[in-house]
Amino acid sequence: MTNTVSKPGRDSAIAHDAANPLRDRRDLFLVPEGTIYLDGNSLGALPRAVPDRIREVLTNEWGDGLISSWNTADWINLPRRVGSKIAPLIGVPDQDVWVSDSTSVSLFKTMVAACRLRPDRKAIVLERATFPTDGYVAASVARMLDLELRWCDSADPVSAMDEDVALVSLTHVDFRTGAMFDMGEVTEAAHHVGALMLWDLCHSAGAVPVGLVEHDVDFAVGCTYKYLNGGPGSPAFMYVARRHQAAIDQPLAGWMGHARPFDMELGYEPVEGVGRLASGTPPILALSALQAALDVFDGIDHPTLRAVSLSLTDFFIELVDARLGSQFEVITPRAHARRGSQVSLRHDQAYGVVQALIARGVIGDFRTPDVARFGFAPLYVSHVDVYDAVDHLVQVMDGEEFARAEYATRNPVT
Amino acid sequence: MTNTVSKPGRDSAIAHDAANPLRDRRDLFLVPEGTIYLDGNSLGALPRAVPDRIREVLTNEWGDGLISSWNTADWINLPRRVGSKIAPLIGVPDQDVWVSDSTSVSLFKTMVAACRLRPDRKAIVLERATFPTDGYVAASVARMLDLELRWCDSADPVSAMDEDVALVSLTHVDFRTGAMFDMGEVTEAAHHVGALMLWDLCHSAGAVPVGLVEHDVDFAVGCTYKYLNGGPGSPAFMYVARRHQAAIDQPLAGWMGHARPFDMELGYEPVEGVGRLASGTPPILALSALQAALDVFDGIDHPTLRAVSLSLTDFFIELVDARLGSQFEVITPRAHARRGSQVSLRHDQAYGVVQALIARGVIGDFRTPDVARFGFAPLYVSHVDVYDAVDHLVQVMDGEEFARAEYATRNPVT
Repeated sequence: MTNTVSKPGRDSAIAHDAANPLRDRRDLFLVPEGTIYLDGNSLGALPRAVPDRIREVLTNEWGDGLISSWNTADWINLPRRVGSKIAPLIGVPDQDVWVSDSTSVSLFKTMVAACRLRPDRKAIVLERATFPTDGYVAASVARMLDLELRWCDSADPVSAMDEDVALVSLTHVDFRTGAMFDMGEVTEAAHHVGALMLWDLCHSAGAVPVGLVEHDVDFAVGCTYKYLNGGPGSPAFMYVARRHQAAIDQPLAGWMGHARPFDMELGYEPVEGVGRLASGTPPILALSALQAALDVFDGIDHPTLRAVSLSLTDFFIELVDARLGSQFEVITPRAHARRGSQVSLRHDQAYGVVQALIARGVIGDFRTPDVARFGFAPLYVSHVDVYDAVDHLVQVMDGEEFARAEYATRNPVT
Repeated sequence: MTNTVSKPGRDSAIAHDAANPLRDRRDLFLVPEGTIYLDGNSLGALPRAVPDRIREVLTNEWGDGLISSWNTADWINLPRRVGSKIAPLIGVPDQDVWVSDSTSVSLFKTMVAACRLRPDRKAIVLERATFPTDGYVAASVARMLDLELRWCDSADPVSAMDEDVALVSLTHVDFRTGAMFDMGEVTEAAHHVGALMLWDLCHSAGAVPVGLVEHDVDFAVGCTYKYLNGGPGSPAFMYVARRHQAAIDQPLAGWMGHARPFDMELGYEPVEGVGRLASGTPPILALSALQAALDVFDGIDHPTLRAVSLSLTDFFIELVDARLGSQFEVITPRAHARRGSQVSLRHDQAYGVVQALIARGVIGDFRTPDVARFGFAPLYVSHVDVYDAVDHLVQVMDGEEFARAEYATRNPVT
């Protein structure tokens, strides 16, 4: 039997929320009534401004403006304009971010570009715990450029680095555990051996403030449909440090990255700046949705965003410790400096636990083999959500609902 | 002075429209009042069903359904479901088309996959008049796979084919001239030397019926924002013949193309079928817009679509010959079998001519150095549009409006 004497109580959650400087931001989102949404690290909630903005793009810009909207609605510059809204969240100049293709494609472009800046070197370093796509893309890059793919442990990426390494490519916040690398320390270690550093920011951008320029990072790629709330499958962003931009030689050059696209020349001459990462015609609907979605971050500073995120994850861990400590292992680091904006709990029946919570309107997700994962988007998750989620979790464990939930979802009636 | 005795007259246009079996389809589109839109070969018009469908996707599927919509709204299968709506337009089985990335990225994936099926060969054949991106992508593929890029003339692609050739990659309908290859003849010639054939269908799909299976084509890629009306920057489609699917080895493998994506394995094992062309998370908003847009083709057969398209381009050429014959060179082939669904006119001041027409509400476009290009989307362009467009063109030439228009657009006041 779980200890049901909760300490801290729901009052404490209410007090935390009252003190939250970002508490009004939740009104900018549609979070369905009766849902506690702790899966914004997989798909961010819908910012309320998006549907009206998209209707305008569809009916006015596309429907009425037709082809002229490439100029009159400035569609042609959307990859850069959307990038400039992401730039402050990752600590880089407005002009140095480009948004166009999927995360996989963006990783491929930047990895190849980075390796070609170190043509005399022969290895890419990647952590074994990486998100699968990063591994598949790196394997493809290594194969096509005749490089070695060298796997490292997340606990010690530095020992895999030496002067054969062209590129170190790591995920800033681990998708499974929520553990976060020390960006400055690892980047410095990569530079120490003369390698370039690429950070995958999929699980940081929008929840964990990132200082790419501060840490002298060379390349970064990040997803926009998680904490940046761009919508399902929204395009990824790419960052290239100013010092490398003129030398970028990427493998998916298309007409939109040409210095004179409408001259339709057979010879490729890349445009100046990060725009040379462009390939084909940019995805205007998706970019417009993302652009409107990013307005929810207007005026937010890094320390406040981080403080709210940590307050939520601290509170969740505190409640789990107090009420469920004997039943779950918190695999997310407790040290603030090593934690992203999610908390992962290990349990043999994590799959059933997550299903039982979903049946109760608490949305987290399961990651194989035994991880229940909860994301805390600082702009729309409240401390009361956190309190209530743990309360549901206590009831799920007390009633052993996880066993029935697992059976039901693995054996659907229909 | 131009001959203003028009023959045929506007009555003839009205009669043609009355006899057009697709005349009601125009009501499915928003074509702005006062606009004659002859640029659907660059950006198709907005199908009226799209905005409501997208609002539903945004508010119901994303907003309310959140992460569960990957299953409940079947987002996960959208690349294939959208592909199955394109399949009949290009003459292939429903399951063999995949829609996910931009045209450039799709070309890269399929070109690499094709060349890897002929590992003992060393050249890619491409026509000099190709769309620039096709050339840049092929150059990148050639560089990364250590192949020769061999350019051919559009008039004679066959003489560039020999037993060194891995892949012949041609644009079915030329974006500048509107000239169309004989797909069967060229594909057979490629196969005769043991090469594989990839067709770029950007300027055919949706306007020119295509029979990929009939002609035994190996690969195809096509744009969906032109005659398929998917919206600005909508994702491209890829086709791979069934006989090659099991051997596809593509360079942008991502977790969505894995046989067991949610097992998050470090080793890549591709799924069966054309789904192995997938990379990352599919772009749901763009795919949903395209899916709704494709409904305008429901129930249309190939011969009818082609007959309407040819009737429109025939009528345009006939009118230009009769009224402006001495002033423009029609560079689009007159033979039906060699013509797509556009007509291109050559004139030294084509740029100014196009600008003057746009000022009059007749939207075509200019292609460097001297081509005025007019696309005839068979589902929403009428014969009256064609008649009135030529009437405007006559007035532009009579009044020498092109000179003022060119000056004004090249020297904007603001």
